[in-house]
Amino acid sequence: MDRVAIIGASMTQFGQRDAWIRELLAEAGQAALADADVSPDEIEHLYVSNMASGEFEGQTGVPNALAHDLAAMPAYTARIDQTSSSGGAGVYAAWQSVASGASDMTMLVGGEKMTHRSTAESTDVIASLTHPVEYKHGVTLPSFAGLTARLYLDTYDAPRESLGKVAVKNHKNGVDNPHAQFRKEVDLDTVLDSPVVADPLRLYDFCPITDGSAALVFCPESVAREYTDDYAVISGIGGATDTHVVHERADPTTMGGVVNSSEIAYEMADLEPDDIEVAELHDMFTILEFLQSEDLGFFEKGEGWKAVEEGVTDRDGDLPINTSGGLKSKGHPLGASGVAQVYEIYKQLIGDAGKRQVDADVGLACNVGGFGNCVTTTIMESR
Amino acid sequence: MDRVAIIGASMTQFGQRDAWIRELLAEAGQAALADADVSPDEIEHLYVSNMASGEFEGQTGVPNALAHDLAAMPAYTARIDQTSSSGGAGVYAAWQSVASGASDMTMLVGGEKMTHRSTAESTDVIASLTHPVEYKHGVTLPSFAGLTARLYLDTYDAPRESLGKVAVKNHKNGVDNPHAQFRKEVDLDTVLDSPVVADPLRLYDFCPITDGSAALVFCPESVAREYTDDYAVISGIGGATDTHVVHERADPTTMGGVVNSSEIAYEMADLEPDDIEVAELHDMFTILEFLQSEDLGFFEKGEGWKAVEEGVTDRDGDLPINTSGGLKSKGHPLGASGVAQVYEIYKQLIGDAGKRQVDADVGLACNVGGFGNCVTTTIMESR
Repeated sequence: MDRVAIIGASMTQFGQRDAWIRELLAEAGQAALADADVSPDEIEHLYVSNMASGEFEGQTGVPNALAHDLAAMPAYTARIDQTSSSGGAGVYAAWQSVASGASDMTMLVGGEKMTHRSTAESTDVIASLTHPVEYKHGVTLPSFAGLTARLYLDTYDAPRESLGKVAVKNHKNGVDNPHAQFRKEVDLDTVLDSPVVADPLRLYDFCPITDGSAALVFCPESVAREYTDDYAVISGIGGATDTHVVHERADPTTMGGVVNSSEIAYEMADLEPDDIEVAELHDMFTILEFLQSEDLGFFEKGEGWKAVEEGVTDRDGDLPINTSGGLKSKGHPLGASGVAQVYEIYKQLIGDAGKRQVDADVGLACNVGGFGNCVTTTIMESR
Repeated sequence: MDRVAIIGASMTQFGQRDAWIRELLAEAGQAALADADVSPDEIEHLYVSNMASGEFEGQTGVPNALAHDLAAMPAYTARIDQTSSSGGAGVYAAWQSVASGASDMTMLVGGEKMTHRSTAESTDVIASLTHPVEYKHGVTLPSFAGLTARLYLDTYDAPRESLGKVAVKNHKNGVDNPHAQFRKEVDLDTVLDSPVVADPLRLYDFCPITDGSAALVFCPESVAREYTDDYAVISGIGGATDTHVVHERADPTTMGGVVNSSEIAYEMADLEPDDIEVAELHDMFTILEFLQSEDLGFFEKGEGWKAVEEGVTDRDGDLPINTSGGLKSKGHPLGASGVAQVYEIYKQLIGDAGKRQVDADVGLACNVGGFGNCVTTTIMESR
């Protein structure tokens, strides 16, 4: 079968942006077209990953607006929403559009405009994704992160400092990402002394609220060869849900959606966890990087923290994780995040990651919706 | 290639429902599983067609909630939004999931809960899909319908009564649809004397605001044969956008999205318009049934109105259109409508349409988003 290739990518500056969702999407879309050297009228399918333009801006129909703004008519469009994993779900939709033969040239643009709303308002929109038994009692995603972090530290005898080191590592990586929201190193004391948000987690254990957009151009590998020598392929991709009610999970330190989606992706790619050479994980909270690194099979259960302590996941380690800076320092514009993860892996695989470049031919991106309620895992390989 | 089959379907009662979106989706989903004789744990992908649960109910993450409510974990889920054509876009997503090999058993559930909000509030959510140059000046979708109807009547010398006859026909069909919001015939005088909404269109030229849900179960044809002899196949499917700004269209009586999406679907199915034996069109406004019936190639440009006058599109005519009652009498719960269109064609093709049954082996559903901003066309055949 003709594999699905990525032949171009872009991301906007992430952060507090003086632009609406339509402008952010168009900015990323135009840049990705230029990067792929594809004209708008070649686009057959145009997907938009976005959770909540209606709730955040009172603007719906954003995919049609984007087709207009990019002059991509009559390209087919649709919006893909999977809450904070909308980007990964968009990658899956774009992959399916090419793999099914429906489209020979698909663009995915993910984005979210959030910072014009207060943190309370944004949190309210995000909290509405959880089960009513949870959010009506005040158990929001940060609360789950705190509870899970405490359980993890106790169960696996991990030091509190190990969580802080995830923040330190990802901030250090973000310094070299020109699109990142925060391009500054933080030291461990700063992280550990920052204000408590959900004990034991503190301010620097959390990603920020962010505006931004990212875009990718997909086509069959046979078509890709006509455009460029610098492409990457998606060799495995899968998605899975976990219980919508978090307290129904047998072991809250295991994310079933990560386990199940990655099993599908590994099988499709015919690869093992040991084959992965660089990964972007969904570090919305520092604790999530531990859980995913274990549930993806990179490290034994309860030992993800040791990998961070030992520098295994540093940029110059055996398995660099979040070379982009992760959600932690790059920022987390919901619909864009999963797209930006794949952007980073693509850049690494084609050797265009600048100061962030590592030596890798196989990469993985794991995008988490809710508190692991739905997860998409994508495995990519250099051509 | 193994074609994509539909092996089960359901729709809830459409109308004013005392149930939230999650309940409506679960009701349709459970009924479709029962209809297909498929257990929840067989579902690999679960898509939800829904435009605006966040705006209407303050509830996001609905696909995860549905996976929970149907006990379909760890099935992958995502929400597909394409405004009023979200249902058709969901059908396309479900088709792609099976055709790409990503899923061997996909469920699509479309739904919307709207009637708890005032007409003004609902209209406001819907109007936000249009370009700001339009809605900020008060040009809403009903306004476009009035302007287009006037232009159509003038250009093609069609009588005002012909529009009314669309309403009369579809209400008559709806009487035999147990799930329809309105199950009563209306006479032409009632339609023509109803209050003006957007001249020349009156109240009975418009579909109602509706709560409801519909669901479909998709799998490869080779798998379908293991489950049932009563299945239908999707032999052609396509989607396309038109200009996001309606006044940029060269001829406002032509819907480019209908033309372009159906060309893709016809080519894929290797069929011509003359091969279609039953169709569900998006009669959100009576005028749209004329435009689609022409742009799909059923009738010459400017002659769709004659077909209605001559009874060609009646249930016992040569090309029955909207045997379900259409959006006009069945109702229009945004995310459900495109799914319910395919439900009707499926029922007709497997010979399970009860009093609405016509003699057909090839059917078509055309689902329109915005004022033709994005359109999905699906062609189905009996096995």
